[in-house]
Amino acid sequence: MHEQRLLELLSAIAAGELHPSDGLEQLRALPFDDISFAKVDTHRLLRKGYPETIFCQGKTPEQVVAIAGRMLAHGQNVFGTRCSLTCFQAVQAVHGDAVYHEQARTFSIEAAPPPISSGYVAVVCAGTSDIPVAEEAATTCGALGVQVERVYDVGVAGLHRLLEQRERLTRATAVIVCAGMEGALPSVVAGLVPGLVIAVPTSIGYGASFNGIAALLGMLNSCATGLTVVNIDNGFGAAVAACTVVRMVEKNG
Amino acid sequence: MHEQRLLELLSAIAAGELHPSDGLEQLRALPFDDISFAKVDTHRLLRKGYPETIFCQGKTPEQVVAIAGRMLAHGQNVFGTRCSLTCFQAVQAVHGDAVYHEQARTFSIEAAPPPISSGYVAVVCAGTSDIPVAEEAATTCGALGVQVERVYDVGVAGLHRLLEQRERLTRATAVIVCAGMEGALPSVVAGLVPGLVIAVPTSIGYGASFNGIAALLGMLNSCATGLTVVNIDNGFGAAVAACTVVRMVEKNG
Amino acid sequence: MHEQRLLELLSAIAAGELHPSDGLEQLRALPFDDISFAKVDTHRLLRKGYPETIFCQGKTPEQVVAIAGRMLAHGQNVFGTRCSLTCFQAVQAVHGDAVYHEQARTFSIEAAPPPISSGYVAVVCAGTSDIPVAEEAATTCGALGVQVERVYDVGVAGLHRLLEQRERLTRATAVIVCAGMEGALPSVVAGLVPGLVIAVPTSIGYGASFNGIAALLGMLNSCATGLTVVNIDNGFGAAVAACTVVRMVEKNG
Amino acid sequence: MHEQRLLELLSAIAAGELHPSDGLEQLRALPFDDISFAKVDTHRLLRKGYPETIFCQGKTPEQVVAIAGRMLAHGQNVFGTRCSLTCFQAVQAVHGDAVYHEQARTFSIEAAPPPISSGYVAVVCAGTSDIPVAEEAATTCGALGVQVERVYDVGVAGLHRLLEQRERLTRATAVIVCAGMEGALPSVVAGLVPGLVIAVPTSIGYGASFNGIAALLGMLNSCATGLTVVNIDNGFGAAVAACTVVRMVEKNG
Amino acid sequence: MHEQRLLELLSAIAAGELHPSDGLEQLRALPFDDISFAKVDTHRLLRKGYPETIFCQGKTPEQVVAIAGRMLAHGQNVFGTRCSLTCFQAVQAVHGDAVYHEQARTFSIEAAPPPISSGYVAVVCAGTSDIPVAEEAATTCGALGVQVERVYDVGVAGLHRLLEQRERLTRATAVIVCAGMEGALPSVVAGLVPGLVIAVPTSIGYGASFNGIAALLGMLNSCATGLTVVNIDNGFGAAVAACTVVRMVEKNG
Amino acid sequence: MHEQRLLELLSAIAAGELHPSDGLEQLRALPFDDISFAKVDTHRLLRKGYPETIFCQGKTPEQVVAIAGRMLAHGQNVFGTRCSLTCFQAVQAVHGDAVYHEQARTFSIEAAPPPISSGYVAVVCAGTSDIPVAEEAATTCGALGVQVERVYDVGVAGLHRLLEQRERLTRATAVIVCAGMEGALPSVVAGLVPGLVIAVPTSIGYGASFNGIAALLGMLNSCATGLTVVNIDNGFGAAVAACTVVRMVEKNG
Amino acid sequence: MHEQRLLELLSAIAAGELHPSDGLEQLRALPFDDISFAKVDTHRLLRKGYPETIFCQGKTPEQVVAIAGRMLAHGQNVFGTRCSLTCFQAVQAVHGDAVYHEQARTFSIEAAPPPISSGYVAVVCAGTSDIPVAEEAATTCGALGVQVERVYDVGVAGLHRLLEQRERLTRATAVIVCAGMEGALPSVVAGLVPGLVIAVPTSIGYGASFNGIAALLGMLNSCATGLTVVNIDNGFGAAVAACTVVRMVEKNG
Amino acid sequence: MHEQRLLELLSAIAAGELHPSDGLEQLRALPFDDISFAKVDTHRLLRKGYPETIFCQGKTPEQVVAIAGRMLAHGQNVFGTRCSLTCFQAVQAVHGDAVYHEQARTFSIEAAPPPISSGYVAVVCAGTSDIPVAEEAATTCGALGVQVERVYDVGVAGLHRLLEQRERLTRATAVIVCAGMEGALPSVVAGLVPGLVIAVPTSIGYGASFNGIAALLGMLNSCATGLTVVNIDNGFGAAVAACTVVRMVEKNG
Repeated sequence: MHEQRLLELLSAIAAGELHPSDGLEQLRALPFDDISFAKVDTHRLLRKGYPETIFCQGKTPEQVVAIAGRMLAHGQNVFGTRCSLTCFQAVQAVHGDAVYHEQARTFSIEAAPPPISSGYVAVVCAGTSDIPVAEEAATTCGALGVQVERVYDVGVAGLHRLLEQRERLTRATAVIVCAGMEGALPSVVAGLVPGLVIAVPTSIGYGASFNGIAALLGMLNSCATGLTVVNIDNGFGAAVAACTVVRMVEKNG
Repeated sequence: MHEQRLLELLSAIAAGELHPSDGLEQLRALPFDDISFAKVDTHRLLRKGYPETIFCQGKTPEQVVAIAGRMLAHGQNVFGTRCSLTCFQAVQAVHGDAVYHEQARTFSIEAAPPPISSGYVAVVCAGTSDIPVAEEAATTCGALGVQVERVYDVGVAGLHRLLEQRERLTRATAVIVCAGMEGALPSVVAGLVPGLVIAVPTSIGYGASFNGIAALLGMLNSCATGLTVVNIDNGFGAAVAACTVVRMVEKNG
Repeated sequence: MHEQRLLELLSAIAAGELHPSDGLEQLRALPFDDISFAKVDTHRLLRKGYPETIFCQGKTPEQVVAIAGRMLAHGQNVFGTRCSLTCFQAVQAVHGDAVYHEQARTFSIEAAPPPISSGYVAVVCAGTSDIPVAEEAATTCGALGVQVERVYDVGVAGLHRLLEQRERLTRATAVIVCAGMEGALPSVVAGLVPGLVIAVPTSIGYGASFNGIAALLGMLNSCATGLTVVNIDNGFGAAVAACTVVRMVEKNG
Repeated sequence: MHEQRLLELLSAIAAGELHPSDGLEQLRALPFDDISFAKVDTHRLLRKGYPETIFCQGKTPEQVVAIAGRMLAHGQNVFGTRCSLTCFQAVQAVHGDAVYHEQARTFSIEAAPPPISSGYVAVVCAGTSDIPVAEEAATTCGALGVQVERVYDVGVAGLHRLLEQRERLTRATAVIVCAGMEGALPSVVAGLVPGLVIAVPTSIGYGASFNGIAALLGMLNSCATGLTVVNIDNGFGAAVAACTVVRMVEKNG
Repeated sequence: MHEQRLLELLSAIAAGELHPSDGLEQLRALPFDDISFAKVDTHRLLRKGYPETIFCQGKTPEQVVAIAGRMLAHGQNVFGTRCSLTCFQAVQAVHGDAVYHEQARTFSIEAAPPPISSGYVAVVCAGTSDIPVAEEAATTCGALGVQVERVYDVGVAGLHRLLEQRERLTRATAVIVCAGMEGALPSVVAGLVPGLVIAVPTSIGYGASFNGIAALLGMLNSCATGLTVVNIDNGFGAAVAACTVVRMVEKNG
Repeated sequence: MHEQRLLELLSAIAAGELHPSDGLEQLRALPFDDISFAKVDTHRLLRKGYPETIFCQGKTPEQVVAIAGRMLAHGQNVFGTRCSLTCFQAVQAVHGDAVYHEQARTFSIEAAPPPISSGYVAVVCAGTSDIPVAEEAATTCGALGVQVERVYDVGVAGLHRLLEQRERLTRATAVIVCAGMEGALPSVVAGLVPGLVIAVPTSIGYGASFNGIAALLGMLNSCATGLTVVNIDNGFGAAVAACTVVRMVEKNG
Repeated sequence: MHEQRLLELLSAIAAGELHPSDGLEQLRALPFDDISFAKVDTHRLLRKGYPETIFCQGKTPEQVVAIAGRMLAHGQNVFGTRCSLTCFQAVQAVHGDAVYHEQARTFSIEAAPPPISSGYVAVVCAGTSDIPVAEEAATTCGALGVQVERVYDVGVAGLHRLLEQRERLTRATAVIVCAGMEGALPSVVAGLVPGLVIAVPTSIGYGASFNGIAALLGMLNSCATGLTVVNIDNGFGAAVAACTVVRMVEKNG
Repeated sequence: MHEQRLLELLSAIAAGELHPSDGLEQLRALPFDDISFAKVDTHRLLRKGYPETIFCQGKTPEQVVAIAGRMLAHGQNVFGTRCSLTCFQAVQAVHGDAVYHEQARTFSIEAAPPPISSGYVAVVCAGTSDIPVAEEAATTCGALGVQVERVYDVGVAGLHRLLEQRERLTRATAVIVCAGMEGALPSVVAGLVPGLVIAVPTSIGYGASFNGIAALLGMLNSCATGLTVVNIDNGFGAAVAACTVVRMVEKNG
């Protein structure tokens, strides 16, 4: 522990075992890495309650395996996103208990199951094409120990199905809405629910959808209030933000 | 008449009054301009049933006055769009019966009232900021003799007011929907009505609305069917397209 | 039936079988999903007269097969767009009477042939590269029971061939024009015909065509009137809009 | 009251004063506008706990005055954003107790003070140029009855001053960070605090800042987690989202 | 010949073999297709002196073979651009004398060699990566019968080699300069030579070259005079424009 | 004369009046500035036959006056573009014989009239809004001594008027076509005339015309051949390129 | 001094005057703000050797005056950029010795003259329109005590004048090149000189220059080596980077 | 040597062995290519101290082999960038001592080892995905004989590790920082170190990172001073700029 080490150092000075100027030298080296380390530590384990995540895209399978191994050695749960099947197979060859979420393209290795939240995040998407992004969000929530309600069979052509789910949406602590094309679904949802809505534009579409730009702009310019936006296809980021709110509510609940 | 002139020319050749090779020379000059002239004439007066429009932006008041005068001299009704108050005052100084539609920034001088349609176009907009574009559409319909129903007090925050107007929208031959920001209103309307919906993105908004680009992209990528799009702030173009459908229905009705 | 259920509920109250406040609770849940369900039903089968379409891109063959099966079970005709040959083969393995339109990359399974329109839609394109988009439009019209005239061998370098087809274009209820590169063809057509012209920018071109953006911008900024635009490569959307006009004319004819 | 009206209608049926089939006719007319009206009402007053806001940009002073009057007549507090001094003076001429927040360009007229939150939102900005956007956020929180801590004198060149404020930031339920230019400040803040961070790109900058696009992109692509984004210069939207979280925490606390 | 046919028709009228009104009917059919056909014919064979070109990209090999066959049947030379090796092999299987220009990805089948120009076009490019575009230009000139001087081993890092070629450049009737990346070479060349310089941005580069946009913008904004621009990678278009000038000079020489 | 100076220097060495190593020092200084100076001189006066032009935008009136004075002192004609009325008045106050071309926003002061060309440039534009750009082109040609034919009353809505002018266009050595909005006019003209067509996109339009980008892209992607493009609103650049062709034809005529 | 304070704290613990756990509490508060404060202090005064700069754009004159006053109170020199004349006059009213650099729109108030460098920075620009950006760079160098050589009368049309200045450019420690339009000048300069070249795109130009984007892209894609880029119109940033190199050379000289 | 040749020529004239007018002819041919050749020569070998580099992308393996052979024949070291493994294998087949840097995708063949610098360049990157760009920079420094310190295991989530490396960064003559996504790392580094920071945006990221545009814009708009930018993924260019500073410091040291 960081505080423990600092206290030991100061006690050694108090005990005359360490000269103040030598202590100064040790502190000069310490404060940044240790404080920083503590910060990360707190940030990840104590304050935010979730481990680091491996963004696998652009990394070789070897690199992913190595990082996963280092995390497990520190007793942390491992969660990876944007992981191809090939990459996962490399992970699984070493860590047999790794679990792959195929649609989400995420994987997890649990050193110990995270504490489960009482509140939940609703993850909404319009159609089958948006499901991979929605699943990235849902499995991320799962890895962070936050319960999820999936509301997948809704959309512009099926508004009534969305309305049928209104109660589940209304009781959610936060709602993640994934949509491509014109990206109007988050606005509709934000008009129905009391909680924070986090909109995730997806790259689904063609032509002037420009791989999600149309959806992104639509969400940023929404008339609806209580709506914020993350990057295109960033189901992971939406999930962490939503879980942050869930944890904030539970901490103060 | 073009055909008349051709027949006279050929008859003159048959009568030996004109040598074939001289006739060839006359034909070389004729076909394009005359046929073209006939085409434009038909296009404007006979086939489409509406006069040319003056796009005033980028023209001096003097130029607008001159064009209006030339049209009136041909017995045509005059209709001008994107006309500043200053420009209109120059028109009115010469043509005292000119009428200015202030919000629409259009004006009209009627040589003779156009025949009035039986069907109507519904012009919809979300809020007060979009009204100028909607009025450009509505006054254009008026100048073309097509009836208009204005549905202006609707929008995302007042969906119930839109639904209250559903019958008026459903009975319209075509519906023009003007919207800025994320431009989701046309999709909602297209889900409610059986007729063609023409979406007009407006330049209303700020930041990532990019002066109407966000709305334009949203409309182009709409999941709703039966929806087409015109240029940003192009109320005039939407109106002409809608009136084209009204006339088509009436001609075949 | 929605009305039936409402009447039963009110009758139960009238009969004293249900207390008004309990009836209120039941109404609170009812109106949206039931009315919505009725709305969609009317929307698709009664009011618009055409079934839902499966946008296959981004769906697995298994998902497409499942949706098609569900639609057929409801007695609906099935029509799918953006369907790869592989995906179609999966459909055909289950539904032997499925028909694939190779250039259009669409397929259809007819439970019952749709009623055939008397008017027709002209589908125009400039060259061989634009044909897939034009065929998506043409086969969509076919699936909706609307007759089609294909006018494919025209373009800038063959304006005379377009003019030869003027009569077929003029008699069309609506004209769909597909063009890539600078996208000038719709403007030329809109200057020749009395009906609505729906422009479809295609992604054909290179360099500064930016996969159809140049064509899209050209069409949005057209000087020609009576012209509206849909998304890049969206032959399907243009067809539904055109068929909407055909049905409107026939209903009021 | 909507529920009241429904209950009366059902009671009249129960009392035999109204025949079920007549009641059905009345319900057919009711559900959308009334339910919709109830929805908005609940949305604004019961569920979200804050009144509608007037977006003044693009509205004439007369329109703003009229809307404000209508809201006050319903006993609602009035809050307006993007309000020029000229526009405010027109409001104040009619409603003498209207208060203008000059830097924020917002105004408020309180029918009754809103209940004050126990938690607070921290509003952070880097320099003096970003203060107008930050003040739009802060005064919006104020209008919604949510406490605010302003942390304005921080930024890249003064990171130590940000760190000095870490405790105030850490105790906030949500943090709004306004930044222009490269927009890196939200990432730094998100690395320090446990609560949700809502990033507001501002249009401050020049050249390749493209009026806030650089900042917007930077925030959307942030490596930091627990971070979401709103439109450029949208201090209002960030504030409503932040207050949504505050209310969610208090409701469940 | 078009004129011949017209003259025969008029002579038949003059000879009393054809009644004027029957002649009118024949003319009604003639003018567009025949005049149009004559226009294309003149355009291609008499006035511009070069045959149509087949843009192979987006066409199937079968389509290319068919078009080539039709052209040869009319006695025209065939020239195709953007032709893959596979596509060429299909052509060659039918037309054994077809010649493929591999770097240019063009092919030609000569019915009869075109007349050779006395003046020449200089085709300049900076490095080996730009050669395919330069060769498209050079082989196009060849197909049009215009002489070419290739100046390929020049560029920013070898300005002296450009200067060594100044005489060849100065004597050219027109100069085509192909360049990617920042696209500065056309400006330098335009400062050295008296003739028209046609700049061809190439898609060579990476990162912020945006596939030729940087080069295109650089060329459009050049301070040098006597410089015009064509589409990215459009060696063909540059060649036709350059050959147009060569023919204009020779015709008036 | 540069060559003269070099010969004198070498002769002085041959005559023993100058030591080789001293000659080397003089040569080291000479080649670049003198050759460069000669290059500019030739470039402007001998080879290209026209003086430098003053681009007034971004310069103070004082700077323009000073540059004009320096040019006149060297006996050169002065021609300025993008010159506001205010700026011109400052020029005229000093040089009373300066002539202002108001629509073109150009001015000229002639030390001696330039030799007049026998061929001419046709300057075409669609409507009154494009005239300022067309006039910049036309007055530039005038300043360079090249004859101009203005063809201004043509456009999409008046194609017949364009066709009426076909002979004037066909006889032109080069044709400049200025067009805004979708920028389709140059393609039409290039299909009619044998000479080089130089397309000038104008910033006329609104919405998705993006200040001339739509027109620029349309022109770059034109299917028509023999067409090249200059910067948006760059009438000056188009004129210099066109005059370059005129001079090339005359020199070789 | 930070170290001093730490040593005192540790000595107090060693002396038994402070309990280790109390020392821990004090350390918890100290490290970040103190270390940070030291960092800034070193950063500005000791390590980089130049004071903070006031970016005046977006600040009120009152804010600029206040910041300037605070800096002077700490004995620092004051330097402000993007300062309008109005803003400067407010500064001068309080600080009579403030000096305004009108073209650069910068001002300076010297508490004490900075030490003057032995090496110098060459500031190059093409024409009179780019001078304001060049002067922002040059006056920034002056405020940082670094000598400047202005090379302003060069450019594409006057390459010989650039070459005449080659010696001055070659002897510079770093060269700043400001250019708009196609931005080719920095590439040319980088081919001539041995030192680092810092390119500053300017917003000078029109049409497709897009307010400096064309120049920016040209510079980023330059073939020349030893070239780096700063933001559009960012003369200040280029100057600080150049001065950083000058100081680095002198420190190690 | 160039000067030697000039002196011989002048001496021959002085000796009467060469007539002045013949000398003039020889000079006419000489000055540009020889002076130019000398310039390049000096530029590469004497003044800048490093050989030309082969940009392999877009070149065939045969072309790369040929260029490498020509350079080795002149006794130059060979260094190639953007070299695929396939391309390298072709090089190695001919030049067995060629060395491939796999992550960097560069190769080198040393005729003679370059002199090693005393100062060094620090190359920093955030994560494993950015390493290829960083290695392109690092191996380029190596090829130019400049020492490198790699600082790769740092980033937003590990700020403490960056701070631990502060001393190595501070002692560097120049620092290259490679970062994708929001590109904030260079700003942080520039706040810590006294030397020039050269930022390299990488194309790492997804969605609204737009292949490095977000990072590029973030870096161009950085608030930090002493920071310049190169093209996306241009590790090579950053390295040459950094080495230019190292050589400048050593030359003047």
